[in-house]
Amino acid sequence: MNSERNVYLSGDLVPESQANISIFDSAVMLGDCVTESTRTFAHNPFKLDEHITRLYKSLKVARIDPGLSPAEMKTVTLELLQQNLQTIGQGEDFWVVHNISRGLAVAGPDPTVAQSGATVIIHNSPLDLTGWAKFYAQGCHAVTPMSRAIPSQSMDARIKNRSRMHYTLAEVEVKLVDQDAQSVLLDIHGNVSENKGGNVFIISEGVLKTPSTSNCLAGVSRATVLALARTLDVPCEEMSLQPYDLYTADELFFTSTPYCIMPATKFNGLPVGNGEVGVITRQILVAWSALVGIDIQLQAESQL
Amino acid sequence: MNSERNVYLSGDLVPESQANISIFDSAVMLGDCVTESTRTFAHNPFKLDEHITRLYKSLKVARIDPGLSPAEMKTVTLELLQQNLQTIGQGEDFWVVHNISRGLAVAGPDPTVAQSGATVIIHNSPLDLTGWAKFYAQGCHAVTPMSRAIPSQSMDARIKNRSRMHYTLAEVEVKLVDQDAQSVLLDIHGNVSENKGGNVFIISEGVLKTPSTSNCLAGVSRATVLALARTLDVPCEEMSLQPYDLYTADELFFTSTPYCIMPATKFNGLPVGNGEVGVITRQILVAWSALVGIDIQLQAESQL
Amino acid sequence: MNSERNVYLSGDLVPESQANISIFDSAVMLGDCVTESTRTFAHNPFKLDEHITRLYKSLKVARIDPGLSPAEMKTVTLELLQQNLQTIGQGEDFWVVHNISRGLAVAGPDPTVAQSGATVIIHNSPLDLTGWAKFYAQGCHAVTPMSRAIPSQSMDARIKNRSRMHYTLAEVEVKLVDQDAQSVLLDIHGNVSENKGGNVFIISEGVLKTPSTSNCLAGVSRATVLALARTLDVPCEEMSLQPYDLYTADELFFTSTPYCIMPATKFNGLPVGNGEVGVITRQILVAWSALVGIDIQLQAESQL
Amino acid sequence: MNSERNVYLSGDLVPESQANISIFDSAVMLGDCVTESTRTFAHNPFKLDEHITRLYKSLKVARIDPGLSPAEMKTVTLELLQQNLQTIGQGEDFWVVHNISRGLAVAGPDPTVAQSGATVIIHNSPLDLTGWAKFYAQGCHAVTPMSRAIPSQSMDARIKNRSRMHYTLAEVEVKLVDQDAQSVLLDIHGNVSENKGGNVFIISEGVLKTPSTSNCLAGVSRATVLALARTLDVPCEEMSLQPYDLYTADELFFTSTPYCIMPATKFNGLPVGNGEVGVITRQILVAWSALVGIDIQLQAESQL
Amino acid sequence: MNSERNVYLSGDLVPESQANISIFDSAVMLGDCVTESTRTFAHNPFKLDEHITRLYKSLKVARIDPGLSPAEMKTVTLELLQQNLQTIGQGEDFWVVHNISRGLAVAGPDPTVAQSGATVIIHNSPLDLTGWAKFYAQGCHAVTPMSRAIPSQSMDARIKNRSRMHYTLAEVEVKLVDQDAQSVLLDIHGNVSENKGGNVFIISEGVLKTPSTSNCLAGVSRATVLALARTLDVPCEEMSLQPYDLYTADELFFTSTPYCIMPATKFNGLPVGNGEVGVITRQILVAWSALVGIDIQLQAESQL
Amino acid sequence: MNSERNVYLSGDLVPESQANISIFDSAVMLGDCVTESTRTFAHNPFKLDEHITRLYKSLKVARIDPGLSPAEMKTVTLELLQQNLQTIGQGEDFWVVHNISRGLAVAGPDPTVAQSGATVIIHNSPLDLTGWAKFYAQGCHAVTPMSRAIPSQSMDARIKNRSRMHYTLAEVEVKLVDQDAQSVLLDIHGNVSENKGGNVFIISEGVLKTPSTSNCLAGVSRATVLALARTLDVPCEEMSLQPYDLYTADELFFTSTPYCIMPATKFNGLPVGNGEVGVITRQILVAWSALVGIDIQLQAESQL
Repeated sequence: MNSERNVYLSGDLVPESQANISIFDSAVMLGDCVTESTRTFAHNPFKLDEHITRLYKSLKVARIDPGLSPAEMKTVTLELLQQNLQTIGQGEDFWVVHNISRGLAVAGPDPTVAQSGATVIIHNSPLDLTGWAKFYAQGCHAVTPMSRAIPSQSMDARIKNRSRMHYTLAEVEVKLVDQDAQSVLLDIHGNVSENKGGNVFIISEGVLKTPSTSNCLAGVSRATVLALARTLDVPCEEMSLQPYDLYTADELFFTSTPYCIMPATKFNGLPVGNGEVGVITRQILVAWSALVGIDIQLQAESQL
Repeated sequence: MNSERNVYLSGDLVPESQANISIFDSAVMLGDCVTESTRTFAHNPFKLDEHITRLYKSLKVARIDPGLSPAEMKTVTLELLQQNLQTIGQGEDFWVVHNISRGLAVAGPDPTVAQSGATVIIHNSPLDLTGWAKFYAQGCHAVTPMSRAIPSQSMDARIKNRSRMHYTLAEVEVKLVDQDAQSVLLDIHGNVSENKGGNVFIISEGVLKTPSTSNCLAGVSRATVLALARTLDVPCEEMSLQPYDLYTADELFFTSTPYCIMPATKFNGLPVGNGEVGVITRQILVAWSALVGIDIQLQAESQL
Repeated sequence: MNSERNVYLSGDLVPESQANISIFDSAVMLGDCVTESTRTFAHNPFKLDEHITRLYKSLKVARIDPGLSPAEMKTVTLELLQQNLQTIGQGEDFWVVHNISRGLAVAGPDPTVAQSGATVIIHNSPLDLTGWAKFYAQGCHAVTPMSRAIPSQSMDARIKNRSRMHYTLAEVEVKLVDQDAQSVLLDIHGNVSENKGGNVFIISEGVLKTPSTSNCLAGVSRATVLALARTLDVPCEEMSLQPYDLYTADELFFTSTPYCIMPATKFNGLPVGNGEVGVITRQILVAWSALVGIDIQLQAESQL
Repeated sequence: MNSERNVYLSGDLVPESQANISIFDSAVMLGDCVTESTRTFAHNPFKLDEHITRLYKSLKVARIDPGLSPAEMKTVTLELLQQNLQTIGQGEDFWVVHNISRGLAVAGPDPTVAQSGATVIIHNSPLDLTGWAKFYAQGCHAVTPMSRAIPSQSMDARIKNRSRMHYTLAEVEVKLVDQDAQSVLLDIHGNVSENKGGNVFIISEGVLKTPSTSNCLAGVSRATVLALARTLDVPCEEMSLQPYDLYTADELFFTSTPYCIMPATKFNGLPVGNGEVGVITRQILVAWSALVGIDIQLQAESQL
Repeated sequence: MNSERNVYLSGDLVPESQANISIFDSAVMLGDCVTESTRTFAHNPFKLDEHITRLYKSLKVARIDPGLSPAEMKTVTLELLQQNLQTIGQGEDFWVVHNISRGLAVAGPDPTVAQSGATVIIHNSPLDLTGWAKFYAQGCHAVTPMSRAIPSQSMDARIKNRSRMHYTLAEVEVKLVDQDAQSVLLDIHGNVSENKGGNVFIISEGVLKTPSTSNCLAGVSRATVLALARTLDVPCEEMSLQPYDLYTADELFFTSTPYCIMPATKFNGLPVGNGEVGVITRQILVAWSALVGIDIQLQAESQL
Repeated sequence: MNSERNVYLSGDLVPESQANISIFDSAVMLGDCVTESTRTFAHNPFKLDEHITRLYKSLKVARIDPGLSPAEMKTVTLELLQQNLQTIGQGEDFWVVHNISRGLAVAGPDPTVAQSGATVIIHNSPLDLTGWAKFYAQGCHAVTPMSRAIPSQSMDARIKNRSRMHYTLAEVEVKLVDQDAQSVLLDIHGNVSENKGGNVFIISEGVLKTPSTSNCLAGVSRATVLALARTLDVPCEEMSLQPYDLYTADELFFTSTPYCIMPATKFNGLPVGNGEVGVITRQILVAWSALVGIDIQLQAESQL
């Protein structure tokens, strides 16, 4: 085992402890950076192609040229991963994170050009699930903050980017209610939108429901859940949801790359359904574990 | 003269070329960073107290603890500036930029905590005005992008922060019209909001008008212009403006820290007033120059 | 002293313990009821004329005919009050509450008619301020709920009415944060609107600011504060406010009939100003006490 | 036959003429009351389980504890009904109305608690359909008021509650056009929402269309119509509708518990389709009559 | 006296009965036409300069080049008027109407060019006030339609243009209530906007209030009323108004070029103030008559 | 061959060069005119019944009585067409345009009446496709203007009418970007709405997507494309789309009567898909050509 992970930094491999970028990078100066987070299951990256496809959609809309083709991006991603996997044990897994900024920012009337090519960062972090692990069994507390998601006509949530201070501020708001609360952001019309970097699902009278992607991230985990539900013959609807739907749902959960599925057993202080993690939620998580060949919940709980 | 400027980096002075931050900093990972930009006139920082006051407002609302009191912040800012001023000539001036992030990001359910104290960056960059200099005499082209400013219920524009990718995307849109275009962002109701990091003013039948800060940055330059206008007996109104007001205005200009005042002589392809820089605009700029003891326009044009 | 207060019930005086209305009253069946709450200071009703004027505005817009002229309403109100005042001691005061519904509801296609004349209820309750008393000295915690005020195009907040379940639900939301929290409702655009039955004020750099009545109740206490502030040479602005203004205010308080002024020293978990009740807030409360001839704060605190 | 109906009042049976509640009940003071209306067909309550299920959803979201389980609520409801049915003839039917308030209101900073347990009112009123009866044959006049439905982010229409003054005010507006007008409320975006306590349907080129429940009551009658239509092989769509759809529809009708289906033959002064009650509308009503074993239209018309 | 009035048609004088334009004109094909309506008092055009200034603002924003300078436009306008005045008697007055379209429309991908220069129409019609005359003494009925004014981000109401079908449709809606109703359009947020081609004013506790021009036409009559009110020491406020303000106002009136001031004594079926034309309304109308040297009301009433 | 086409003008046949209408027509004075545009393929009008059906929907909602039944309208349309077809060659085709205004406008308080019956204009223009022809092979540049489509609560886009100045102004805005740009109007919420008189489609991962008609014209060409796609086994979705969907689409095209399908190969400066006209787009166009028996693209290109 190597002693330290490397980071891919615009063509170079750099030890993680030295993986720094200029304070003048447009990521720092303008939050002008797109991103993807993939995870591995048993050391295999999950749906890496889907993540790279979405990354290039974000790059296109953000008009950032990464200087690499999608195929090249995949290659350098996998090479880095192979190397870094040597630093962890069998039971551990990695985040595979891409952050691509426009490059060194130019102060002046045109922020759309940069002094350099894009800054391409790829790093692998051990998938530390301790923060989420307890929620598999007991569920988290989903809470709606008073702030609203950014509307698509300001910046579309589907551009997976790093100008996300509003996510943090929304999390601050819900943690006033409960230190373990997870946010359910509403859009400016009061419809359920998303969690910071995650999606929201309910099950109501046997039907799996989630907002359409017109007001939230088009999550890869979201797509995975919809596909798994169909294999389990759970009917699915992408539709407009309001807090009332969450209050009266039988089951409620979030999806995101690191934890896959995070059940919520309270919503704004009230129990969801019978107050326990839902049956269909569990079934989908079990199916996901089967798909990837590891027990997702067990892996997380083993970190506690 | 020293050969290189230093940067204040969380307590340390670091040569600018080595002023890097971790790729795991919350500024990079989440755009979770507040900021101020002050400029010097003849080496004196302009309204530094106002900028520091606003910085601490942003820090408060963003709930970032910089680990320094406002007075300490001012002290380290001035110390750094004094040192760096030795690297530039008399006719040159500096940006004094503060970027303060929450610190090293923690991947997990709670982005509101950090693995370290805040990352406090203060740097001084030579005030390169070449990009704006020609606009003092000829005016720029103000253009409205199709995207809208972020509404306050998503994130208030007065939190001066670095999650600003939408600014860059709006600038991309207006530069499709004209490479020299400067954006006039509208809010989601179609009212004039702001320019990326700047404010918008018109003069109409002798009255200076600008949006109230309910939908835009509470600019220090904005406040300076309002104060100067009052000394020049120009009546001022803070009010809701629509593109119609800009199309039919006699004069139009932007304000921001580096250039102070940037006249616009075209709006969406049509001449503003008679198509030349406006008389009252010039008067305010002259008054500003008198206030700070240097010819602002001349300094900028001398860089061309 | 009498043993029991009477209630004016559509022309009759009824002991309070027997003051009941039919379950078919439109107040119960449809929340179809307008209201006013006046209080006494040292047994004198405060601004009763203003309250009755506003009551008749609500009645007009709600198209309810109370069957009494404003002068008659005042007369029966004062007669009832004189009688009931005999049941309380010198240091105590009363609410004077009017509730006027459309009358007995008719099930059918037209809810705008009633089977009877209006139900006119006037009652006097001892002004129990124990719930609010501690806030004069320590301030309350102002919190924004996720739900939004009802927009004027649905029902104008200035119709002072009893269809107010949304107020209670908003209070539920803020009490998830803090059992002592008081709500600051935003309107659907994210602007500060009102508290349940109260108004919101800030003091920022010496200026008293409060939302205009385009999105909130036109409070009699609100008008009192604006008038007192002017006598104290505190400049006042009625304007659009956002949460940012409250986060960065020096002082924050609510106004409503029973408590007059309730200072807030926290807003969404952050201290307001220095975290203590503000100086100008105190001055206005002192002026109010002087106006009515009793120490408002002392009276309340004496109930603790 | 008994001479008088009883009302269930928080555990007691009370003759209807004495069924009163305190003027301090939160239903009166705050409109803080949830409700259901079920009707009987030939003395059998229709879809009582569905109504009770929805009642408990409303109670949950309103956070009112009725002190009875759903099963207990059903039992007391049926017991009351059995008793009261003895007071009416064979051809008559009942409303079965539940009104449940939070209890005696407490004046103070926290309206979310009450001085007593919930006030549970259940009453049975003879189903007087005279107001609607003529519309089965001739259709009513559907009219859009200028006021808009309350948006879900203020209070969700699916919480079936008694803070409904805005319904009455909207009815006032449409009755300015025609004393027999029935309201078609739009939401704040101009989409068709609901009627006071009812839903809106059109038939357009053979397809039955109604708004999704994201902006209106999730009516039990609405669900019944959708189910009946499917049995009749009428395709159904839940979708966003605008007034244009109603102007150009072939058929238009309302649904609500008492009348089941109320055809509209005019919309804002223009004939709907050929100006007569529609064929598919009639078919669905006939199917409904078959389902419940009485001729719904005939029963109503017999009251004229 | 001549027998027939002439019309100015793109440089030619044409008898009114022959004043036709091509069915391919962009006025017909696209409503692509800007306009002004001036009136004469005792044969003198009132504020013609203001109307021409506004016309050129509309032309600029609509990007139509009329082929005439403002001075030339004024000259041809006055020449035509002088000629046509010979056809009417002393007591009669004229509309002076400008309609300027982009010219002959070109079917194709670019509607912004025309096959010809602009079509410039100037006509003078006898000022037939019979439709409005009775309202001076008895007041009209102001009614809010269900449709909303076009928001400025779709097309600014200040571009005085001929794409006004929505005005007619709104008038249809209010005339369902009362054949004599005049519309008070709300904007999409429920704020009072304008009447078709006119402005709305209220007087409330002695203060004259009217919406700011951010959501309505910047009427020349509106400006006249504001100026006259100031000479009468009536305080004026330009502010956001809602229907509640109109329901509770003491006086209500409309302004527009032909009738100058049209009092409203009913609003949505309720009396305005005491139900009679207001005192201050009359004073302003009297002042206007004095300004122009004819009794405006008398002239109109003499046509009845 | 005749030398000149005739125009149907309210019952008369008039040579096109003399087809004029009064400057007092409500089409000119108020844009108060509804319209349809049908085209012929090989001299056969395409879906004339659908266009006449939609015309009568527009007439109904606009409350204009054309004085002809739909059948009569069809008859006079076909008679005119037969006559005019004699003036063109075999390879040429016609627009068949209906413009129906309310008639001669009456200045006064009621624009809903006219001095005459409706003005019914039917004309046939040679289908000059030169402006669009090059786009079949190379695609056009789709651009989003900053102005927004008119919301349905102001005027529904499905009323096909001639108050369309906002279309022209939106086209002006996009032509600032590119003289060949075609507009993609967004609605006020930032969702994709329509092109001036046309609809917008994308193909994304094999699925054809277009906005539902809740915010755009219910195009006859739109319906044709959906029907053709189904015959080609291309799955179709009517759904809410945002610019992100267009940026990341594989194919993008517009539909409208004259050109049928106009591919776009750029969107706001970025290539759509691979930057070439899409495969499925071509298939649908080919199917359309098959349906109507002429090569649509070839006919247009032959005009270049």
